[in-house]
Amino acid sequence: MINIALDAMGGDHAPHAIVAGAVEAARAYDNIIVSLVGNPDVIQAELKKHDIAGLKLPIVAASEVIEMDEKPVIAVRTKTDSTLVVGCKMVKRGEAQAFVSAGNTGGALAAGIMHVGRMRGILRPALIGPFPTLKGATLILDMGANADVRPEHIQQFAVMGSLYAQAIFGVEQPSVRILSNGEETGKGNQLVIAAYKLLEQTPGINFAGNIESKDIPTGLADVVVTDGFTGNIFVKTAETTARLMTAVITEEVKKSVIATFGALLAKKSLARVRDRMDDSHYGGAVLLGLAGLLVVAHGRSNPTAIRHAIRVAKQANEQDILGKIQQGIEASASLIASAADDVEI
Amino acid sequence: MINIALDAMGGDHAPHAIVAGAVEAARAYDNIIVSLVGNPDVIQAELKKHDIAGLKLPIVAASEVIEMDEKPVIAVRTKTDSTLVVGCKMVKRGEAQAFVSAGNTGGALAAGIMHVGRMRGILRPALIGPFPTLKGATLILDMGANADVRPEHIQQFAVMGSLYAQAIFGVEQPSVRILSNGEETGKGNQLVIAAYKLLEQTPGINFAGNIESKDIPTGLADVVVTDGFTGNIFVKTAETTARLMTAVITEEVKKSVIATFGALLAKKSLARVRDRMDDSHYGGAVLLGLAGLLVVAHGRSNPTAIRHAIRVAKQANEQDILGKIQQGIEASASLIASAADDVEI
Repeated sequence: MINIALDAMGGDHAPHAIVAGAVEAARAYDNIIVSLVGNPDVIQAELKKHDIAGLKLPIVAASEVIEMDEKPVIAVRTKTDSTLVVGCKMVKRGEAQAFVSAGNTGGALAAGIMHVGRMRGILRPALIGPFPTLKGATLILDMGANADVRPEHIQQFAVMGSLYAQAIFGVEQPSVRILSNGEETGKGNQLVIAAYKLLEQTPGINFAGNIESKDIPTGLADVVVTDGFTGNIFVKTAETTARLMTAVITEEVKKSVIATFGALLAKKSLARVRDRMDDSHYGGAVLLGLAGLLVVAHGRSNPTAIRHAIRVAKQANEQDILGKIQQGIEASASLIASAADDVEI
Repeated sequence: MINIALDAMGGDHAPHAIVAGAVEAARAYDNIIVSLVGNPDVIQAELKKHDIAGLKLPIVAASEVIEMDEKPVIAVRTKTDSTLVVGCKMVKRGEAQAFVSAGNTGGALAAGIMHVGRMRGILRPALIGPFPTLKGATLILDMGANADVRPEHIQQFAVMGSLYAQAIFGVEQPSVRILSNGEETGKGNQLVIAAYKLLEQTPGINFAGNIESKDIPTGLADVVVTDGFTGNIFVKTAETTARLMTAVITEEVKKSVIATFGALLAKKSLARVRDRMDDSHYGGAVLLGLAGLLVVAHGRSNPTAIRHAIRVAKQANEQDILGKIQQGIEASASLIASAADDVEI
């Protein structure tokens, strides 16, 4: 039996979409408890809308919510009874095996660092998530946890991302590339150029060089590393453009009468496109590098996205992702140390 | 009569698409000479494919080409008879009123700085171009000329972009925003946060705060400033996603027999979508901040894109964009200086 704590109050469509997703997950997956963290009255009212007979959906009281526009560190320090803090403390004490939130990402990171703690040897936790490509998915990190990073942080992102891809995708030697403004060696800003040199010397990863943003959607790399500022710009630009293109096409198709008739027949195809591009089944991004499992779902998560975020947390726990990454990081640290020794000799 | 020098050898589809674009432009626009810079034999062979009676398309010999994968500064220094160097020298000597190239962007910047020179008072020239939005277009700079910049460079980009928008769009007080990972004040990496503070204090611009990449396509700002690394990632991600979505939708529509029938009827609508998203009529981005007019067209430019890049150069010359920006920069520099004085008092 696994217990997943869920932030019932975080996200654009909280609490109804979150509680609905919890119900979906409790129904869909075996041996699972979903603990709903938040205002008990509000959660109770939402639960009454569902048939939850036989489902394990306990409520854990938390009286505060960290809003999307709050400064993460200050909010986590002052709102000590917020859903983010309460959920993280459950993970820390081993009362929950993971915490899932669609709330303030920066807040989740700050609460995670303060109340769950970093994994041994990790400088900066990073947000890792799958980006849909023509071949399946590419893991991107950092998707937005750290706006400013140093080259050695990106080096650790590469090691963590590589281990995560092995565990999640079952790829033995996942290819790792760094996001840059040109594919040729030597292209990039100062951060990319310095990180590139470190990545070339990092044992245990399959570093394949730079990648331009235009080559990510084709599935050229298993893992793409970048700072959280650039990662955020990349992911949001792609999401928005995809959504906008679908809207523009639907609008154009609807415009003329003859096309409307065509559109009716083509409706199934458009629905399939939406399915293909729908990111809700990807669930959530993991805040990798903490001593416990934190899954951050998209702010605009619907119940399906929440269910999948819970699935991501459940699978990561079953596969002992954190244990594997901890082992890998320690092995890599000693390899990096001896590689550094070799260079000095 | 205006003389536009055109790099006949630069671009993915050079020389045929470039020469074809030159012929289109010479036919479409009045009082124009398009000087084709490159290998005379190659250009002559291309010109023979067209009916150029009455058109002014002289050839200017240049024996070398700077390839896409060459290091810009070294290439410009060593290939002194390259199309980029020859074209820039024509602008410097006043033999041409502008130079247009679809070749190596970094090379064009390096050749521009070395052989045309910076505009008085400009720290860094930036690549400015229109990004298609639901409302029309937003000007983005820097689209990729400077991978690393300082806050004061971004401040100058804002002043240049604002003056350019006034001249091109006829907007009196164009709104200027800075690309960030969150819309709230205080969001951003260190560069954005520092630049934000400068922008707030910059007289003569209508600074409206941060903008997230997801809000650019809706047309929230007239001008968006960013470093060239982030600008490049943003533009390429949007372009690629838009192209890919169109491909995915076409593929899905073609898949089933019933949908194929629908697709035939909806064909006109899809063609309209392609028209709406087609960036070739935007022509090119201007390397703003040089003492002469340089227009950089997309590497994959077709003849239409080349024609429009020539149009952009012609209009910028007719409207004396450079003169207006030079005046504006000088006025702004004195305002910035007195604003700084005020702060000191």
